[in-house]
Amino acid sequence: MFSFSHMAEKDKNPPVADNRDPVPIPAEETSLDPSDWNEFRRLAHEALDEAISYLETVRERPVWQPVPEEVRARLAAPLPKDETPLTDVYRQFTRDILPYATGNIHPRFFGWVHGSGQAGNIVADLLGSAMNSNCGGRDHGAIYVEREVMGWFKELFGFPPESAGLLVSGTSMANLIAMGVARNSLRGDMRGEGVSATAKNLTAYASAEVHSSVVRAMEILGIGSSALRKIAVNPDFSIDLAKLAEQIAKDRAAGMQPFCVIGCAGTVNTGAIDDLEQLAALCAAQQLWFHVDGAFGALCMMSDRLRSRLKGIEKADSLAFDLHKWAHVQYDAGCVLVRSGDAYRAAYSMRPAYLQHISRGLSAGEDWPCDFGPELSRSFRALKVWFAFKEHGTRRIGELIDQNCAQAQYLAKRIASEPELELLAPVSLNIVCFRLLGAGMDSAALDKLNENVVADVQESGVAAPSTTRIKRQLAIRVNITNHRTQRADLDTLVDAVLKAGRLRKKSSGTGRP
Amino acid sequence: MFSFSHMAEKDKNPPVADNRDPVPIPAEETSLDPSDWNEFRRLAHEALDEAISYLETVRERPVWQPVPEEVRARLAAPLPKDETPLTDVYRQFTRDILPYATGNIHPRFFGWVHGSGQAGNIVADLLGSAMNSNCGGRDHGAIYVEREVMGWFKELFGFPPESAGLLVSGTSMANLIAMGVARNSLRGDMRGEGVSATAKNLTAYASAEVHSSVVRAMEILGIGSSALRKIAVNPDFSIDLAKLAEQIAKDRAAGMQPFCVIGCAGTVNTGAIDDLEQLAALCAAQQLWFHVDGAFGALCMMSDRLRSRLKGIEKADSLAFDLHKWAHVQYDAGCVLVRSGDAYRAAYSMRPAYLQHISRGLSAGEDWPCDFGPELSRSFRALKVWFAFKEHGTRRIGELIDQNCAQAQYLAKRIASEPELELLAPVSLNIVCFRLLGAGMDSAALDKLNENVVADVQESGVAAPSTTRIKRQLAIRVNITNHRTQRADLDTLVDAVLKAGRLRKKSSGTGRP
Repeated sequence: MFSFSHMAEKDKNPPVADNRDPVPIPAEETSLDPSDWNEFRRLAHEALDEAISYLETVRERPVWQPVPEEVRARLAAPLPKDETPLTDVYRQFTRDILPYATGNIHPRFFGWVHGSGQAGNIVADLLGSAMNSNCGGRDHGAIYVEREVMGWFKELFGFPPESAGLLVSGTSMANLIAMGVARNSLRGDMRGEGVSATAKNLTAYASAEVHSSVVRAMEILGIGSSALRKIAVNPDFSIDLAKLAEQIAKDRAAGMQPFCVIGCAGTVNTGAIDDLEQLAALCAAQQLWFHVDGAFGALCMMSDRLRSRLKGIEKADSLAFDLHKWAHVQYDAGCVLVRSGDAYRAAYSMRPAYLQHISRGLSAGEDWPCDFGPELSRSFRALKVWFAFKEHGTRRIGELIDQNCAQAQYLAKRIASEPELELLAPVSLNIVCFRLLGAGMDSAALDKLNENVVADVQESGVAAPSTTRIKRQLAIRVNITNHRTQRADLDTLVDAVLKAGRLRKKSSGTGRP
Repeated sequence: MFSFSHMAEKDKNPPVADNRDPVPIPAEETSLDPSDWNEFRRLAHEALDEAISYLETVRERPVWQPVPEEVRARLAAPLPKDETPLTDVYRQFTRDILPYATGNIHPRFFGWVHGSGQAGNIVADLLGSAMNSNCGGRDHGAIYVEREVMGWFKELFGFPPESAGLLVSGTSMANLIAMGVARNSLRGDMRGEGVSATAKNLTAYASAEVHSSVVRAMEILGIGSSALRKIAVNPDFSIDLAKLAEQIAKDRAAGMQPFCVIGCAGTVNTGAIDDLEQLAALCAAQQLWFHVDGAFGALCMMSDRLRSRLKGIEKADSLAFDLHKWAHVQYDAGCVLVRSGDAYRAAYSMRPAYLQHISRGLSAGEDWPCDFGPELSRSFRALKVWFAFKEHGTRRIGELIDQNCAQAQYLAKRIASEPELELLAPVSLNIVCFRLLGAGMDSAALDKLNENVVADVQESGVAAPSTTRIKRQLAIRVNITNHRTQRADLDTLVDAVLKAGRLRKKSSGTGRP
């Protein structure tokens, strides 16, 4: 290494400040802090009261309402150049934003797989906001909290101590990160040389019900989505294992390089869970990376009744799941776990000069979260997870998962008892897909009817189911990942669907009822 | 399409509920909501008072302190199975977590490029927490707020209306997403077929001072980090344009396929800004994608004095920057803008059946944020950005950027006046790199001395600079992206460094002073 010892005495010509456009030093220094802390405190407490009342009275409001035109216009203002008193900003928020939420905290929100959050996380979020930690790395309390939380999830899923994990925004990011480890583990020079120089013809495997984020991960990683083989499913929508083995053999014979199988623990359409035990065995025999997308289904590990359905998940090479769904942590919060901490580190760790580890001070402590994914700036997401699990514990959260699954079965029975309704898929966990029937209506007319009825019910504010397609038919999809939902809410939903359907049929199923 | 019209009458054998392990319906339904809302309200207000006092009194506390062993032990508890009263969870937080923050909200935190947040964002964060929106898509208020904020940034950077953008966790994610658009724009079949089948020998270009996240993006995208050509820099640490042109020509001659140039607007080591105008011209002439990594430097657009240094940024094909740095939005918040909204959409948009757009109800509205990146679950990050810019406006934020740059020059002059200190790089914006000198000490001894002094000063709680390497020499790095910093704080820092250095030299520069 070049010696700099001649510089041990002060250089006669030190580098000078870059004075191309010198900024004059202001006479008085200012900050963004409130000029009157008491006034700020008063407003903050008012906002907190409003926030808590908003949650406490959620049942009294419509699930969802469209954003009116005049509000949309106000939410299209130009870049603010001048200051506005915080009170006025807050007033605009309560008028133009607060009334138009997604709706997922409401007991009759059944659209997509959204969690409903929890009151305690408001406390966690305001405290985390005051700390304003950056959790990319370094040695401070937030990093220990994230390590503690990671320890919890290793314990929950039976992952070994040498495994490693990261909190991320959700399962989409977690799938991308885990599949990146799967890819990078193939060859030591993958990071440097890329896929074309090191590993052509890669193929991955998942059921036809696999989530779109896995497809997107294949694209982002440069492998390409056509290299994801979508395997046919059994009648319960789980992956057909024989067909999977067949496809892998066929690909190997054709010179492809199978590298990863993605098992689903709770598919987005119907909540189906693949046979993870058998997938693990197949992957071990075939020397393939076994990743599990457990977005919401993986949390059934907290349910004494449902845990057995996930058998084999503890053998996964990597696992992705959400905390803002069935753990009701506030958005956004998901997690990725990788069995081999070494493989994980080797796939992402990178420490430029300004991030070098030092044994003492702020730069101490290993591992840093930035060693495990693409993000260097990271909020203190671990705090709300820590609060949620500390306050409620896994037993209670698991009981509420059971409650949702029992409610799904209750709904399925109600649907089966209604002559105008038809179940479209078996209820595996918490998702119920059904549709309205109509005498003499063809497939296209039924699709249109059901699509319209879902929009009618959403716009009524009574309930919010969503839609999907089950074997090409447009389905009304009811997802129950909501600790506030009660059986009575499901009856209200069915009544609203039937009513909207009858109105639609009267007016020939087209246009507004 | 197969007709399902025969199913318009109810099937005699509808799919049955999956009863492998039926969950019994509980007699009484429960939720995670507080059993006593008044008690919850009382605790939440107590926590808010604590949070505000924490911010108000930040100057009275040490910048940073190590997490004691007994606290670390308590933050390594097993998975909580039982419930704990929220009050007790909160008490543990105030004892074990709150005192051990990163330190970046303190006026004498100068480590890395961290923003210091702002009081108003506590209000935004607690309100956002109550709403608990999922901002992946759909039609609700939060989506309009994010569109409004995107409109602001298009306006700020002179991007055209047809451009598109996304709020992300920070510039690391923004660089990855933008470079993904650059890659996918090369060929229509890139997403499906991957890089090896469509575009071998890709090369990208950036200065040797480029941020590590760009290297990592090359790895994740499957192109490989060795395909990133790191071009030598000028004495002011900006990219050497002649050497860049030379390398591109050389690569083309060797059969490589140059596709992207990454310009730096504020390098992490010294705050250097590349000549973006010239880079834009070169990229236009060479038909290369021009991406700008403007992590913190791009926000100089808000400063009347500094804006001219960014000339050319408005010609970028894509731009990445942070909001949690010089806009002092709470962690985490960054942004990516792409000039061609069509190219951006084509690179990521993907709508499976359950996310189909519908003209009315919750599934209405275009574009959805999930069309522009890997995340489907997304917090209401736009709210804190909206609050921050509404309250303070760009003029005020820009003035505080000026203030930080003036303070950096003040610090550089103080260093130049101290015989024991040496500046190691010109001060371009807000970053000052220097070191302690020592008579007769060689390069290794000086590195050790400066590393130890940084840890000493951090551990003293007086100030928190960080370290980096400038031309292989270990530098004390002072970054000022802090609206609370005053010139007096910089004098305190220099005094602390000098004092720690003298103590170290007395004890031969090794071990504890």
